[in-house]
Amino acid sequence: MAMRFDTLWSNARLATMAPERPGLGTIEDGCVAALDGRIVFVGAATDLPSTDAVDRIDCGGRWITPGLVDCHTHLIFGGHRANEFAMRLQGATYEEISRAGGGIAASMKATRAASEAELVASGLKRLDHLIAEGVTTIEIKSGYGLDLETEIRSLRAARQLGHARAVSVVTSFLGAHALPPEANGDKDAYIERVCNEMLPAIAALKLVDAVDAFCEGIAFSPEQTARVFATAKSFGLPVKLHADQLSNLHGARLAAEHGALSADHLEHTDEDGVVALTRAGTVAVVLPGAYYALRETQAPPIALFRKHGTHLALATDSNPGTSPLTSLLLAMNMAATLFRLTIDECLIGVTREAARALGKLGETGTLEVGKFCDLAIWDIEQPAELVYRIGFNPLHARVWHGRSAAISPS
Amino acid sequence: MAMRFDTLWSNARLATMAPERPGLGTIEDGCVAALDGRIVFVGAATDLPSTDAVDRIDCGGRWITPGLVDCHTHLIFGGHRANEFAMRLQGATYEEISRAGGGIAASMKATRAASEAELVASGLKRLDHLIAEGVTTIEIKSGYGLDLETEIRSLRAARQLGHARAVSVVTSFLGAHALPPEANGDKDAYIERVCNEMLPAIAALKLVDAVDAFCEGIAFSPEQTARVFATAKSFGLPVKLHADQLSNLHGARLAAEHGALSADHLEHTDEDGVVALTRAGTVAVVLPGAYYALRETQAPPIALFRKHGTHLALATDSNPGTSPLTSLLLAMNMAATLFRLTIDECLIGVTREAARALGKLGETGTLEVGKFCDLAIWDIEQPAELVYRIGFNPLHARVWHGRSAAISPS
Repeated sequence: MAMRFDTLWSNARLATMAPERPGLGTIEDGCVAALDGRIVFVGAATDLPSTDAVDRIDCGGRWITPGLVDCHTHLIFGGHRANEFAMRLQGATYEEISRAGGGIAASMKATRAASEAELVASGLKRLDHLIAEGVTTIEIKSGYGLDLETEIRSLRAARQLGHARAVSVVTSFLGAHALPPEANGDKDAYIERVCNEMLPAIAALKLVDAVDAFCEGIAFSPEQTARVFATAKSFGLPVKLHADQLSNLHGARLAAEHGALSADHLEHTDEDGVVALTRAGTVAVVLPGAYYALRETQAPPIALFRKHGTHLALATDSNPGTSPLTSLLLAMNMAATLFRLTIDECLIGVTREAARALGKLGETGTLEVGKFCDLAIWDIEQPAELVYRIGFNPLHARVWHGRSAAISPS
Repeated sequence: MAMRFDTLWSNARLATMAPERPGLGTIEDGCVAALDGRIVFVGAATDLPSTDAVDRIDCGGRWITPGLVDCHTHLIFGGHRANEFAMRLQGATYEEISRAGGGIAASMKATRAASEAELVASGLKRLDHLIAEGVTTIEIKSGYGLDLETEIRSLRAARQLGHARAVSVVTSFLGAHALPPEANGDKDAYIERVCNEMLPAIAALKLVDAVDAFCEGIAFSPEQTARVFATAKSFGLPVKLHADQLSNLHGARLAAEHGALSADHLEHTDEDGVVALTRAGTVAVVLPGAYYALRETQAPPIALFRKHGTHLALATDSNPGTSPLTSLLLAMNMAATLFRLTIDECLIGVTREAARALGKLGETGTLEVGKFCDLAIWDIEQPAELVYRIGFNPLHARVWHGRSAAISPS
């Protein structure tokens, strides 16, 4: 009896990213077949069972990777911060910019002033750039509202993006991003609001898939972060953390202790933190766009991640201040150029490990039977080209949940 | 009597880049009008004469800049060097890569093996990415042939790109790029071939608009460069130079002494060189893509350029080895982020000064009456957004010689 497929992609070279295969899990002359949005066959053409596939797509020898996963973005915000960027280039200090109303406060003000439709419209422009490069799953954080109403509006807008485009959106509540001005400097009181007012309301509305926090001298302390994490746990929500970006507050260890899905940034994480992440199975997510834009000089401890076998992902950190980056291909080039990640680490880091960082490895991130059929099909001769080029996009086609999906703005 | 226009773009904000105006030469509520491909009016709507324009285009308040000019590219070559990039990430030294046949030699081999049609096809993919960002004029060098036949084929392919797309192509002969293996290490003998065999043939075929050379320890000496420049002069061709990129061989001064259109790279140029460039009116072209990709630490002497008022441009340096970059917007962001160029320096550097670096300032590079009507129309609120964003393209429309031109690959 013939196997039933909706669609069969054949004459392709596959980078499956399957964990039991070495490197990228390459299959030459491979096929992928989908039924009801899921992968039902992936393998060599010679192993293909007889089939009545409705659609047969000859990939002409092109490469297929899993659809890319951008596992750390702040895609929803009002306005932009080009002014601030211009001021810095003219020599303004961070303090001067802050006094001029800049920084997260500027984005908070513009986000509070924006309607949900405006947040969706501006977010779509950024999302479309990522989609055009093969992204099929994206994490989007709140955190520019910093009050209940605007955090809710931001998360609703994030969910809307997932309805407006053929892409999976995973949301994170980042109320503990910065202190809003009305808190008058009282971080503990604000964290109480995050835990007692904002998180319960947002969880009840089912707007959020995980809870994030920014643990840093300029943001919240490890104790305040732990308070947020404990509350998240009480709602059954997984956690993640902006950790050790500018200094070592042992955020990586804190994240590991709370079984976080991921700890992100990690420029200042020490070996103790790396060991803790590894033992907990927490994914280390590096964000080279922010490192580049802030002209940081201390790179994350890549050698320690390798030594301990830490799960390693990377993402755009797309945000209006420290990483106004909307290219995951460029994030890979920056991770290679600036952090010396290998080609395989980059490609696995935006597929399998990025899916793991979102708790979605059962659904996407590799080409394996049972997962959603999320594909990126590339006009390249070898996967290294996806990392090597700078400001170039060789995407040929994108498939989300088994269906061919747009790659240019509609 | 009404003035005659073919097309009128109105309801726009203009960054004219006109030299007699401060900064970007901004005009709010401006109009541009074209007749027979040339600008015949540019100014405030209130100053617009009565007109019978055939086409009236309402720009909806968008910004118009001159079409962008990428004044330094090596766009024509065979193959790519993704393999080499991967090897470097795995710790291979330049010597190991060289022994494995890498470097310029690898591109030379692939270029010699490619037909003109193949060179055009691969060049078009790169050109289309640049065009999609508003480029209307591009310089393209030879220099991966290193023998007469392949240099001619490369320059013909470059000219073909200008016929295949609505873009102005300016060619440079870069025979003195590297020493081909058949020269057996004899640089003087190869330079003789460049001067006595290659340049005369290429000049006779009218394939070249300028002559370039690479003056560096790993390439050619100042004396060899001067020999090439003298020959170029004898054919009435302007010169330009890859100068002081890795060391200070006083290439900037050499370029100035020969009245070069531009001296490019300039990381190691000293004040004496900057003064010489300024006096000669030679444009300093900085190439942040190569600086980024090579992880250089010494930036070009921007403060000295400002002190002396040197003409300053920037470009992608798009090439398969040290700058596989096909985004002029990203080159601006890199120039700002890595070299601290201001917004105005970046934007003037990819329009007016880039046109000057090609000797084409009479034809393009600013919005002024009499020039070709080459426009980029942007979905932005302020010009700083073109520099601030990373991996984002807000181009709305592109106009080349008065005609609306494609912005996505045909």
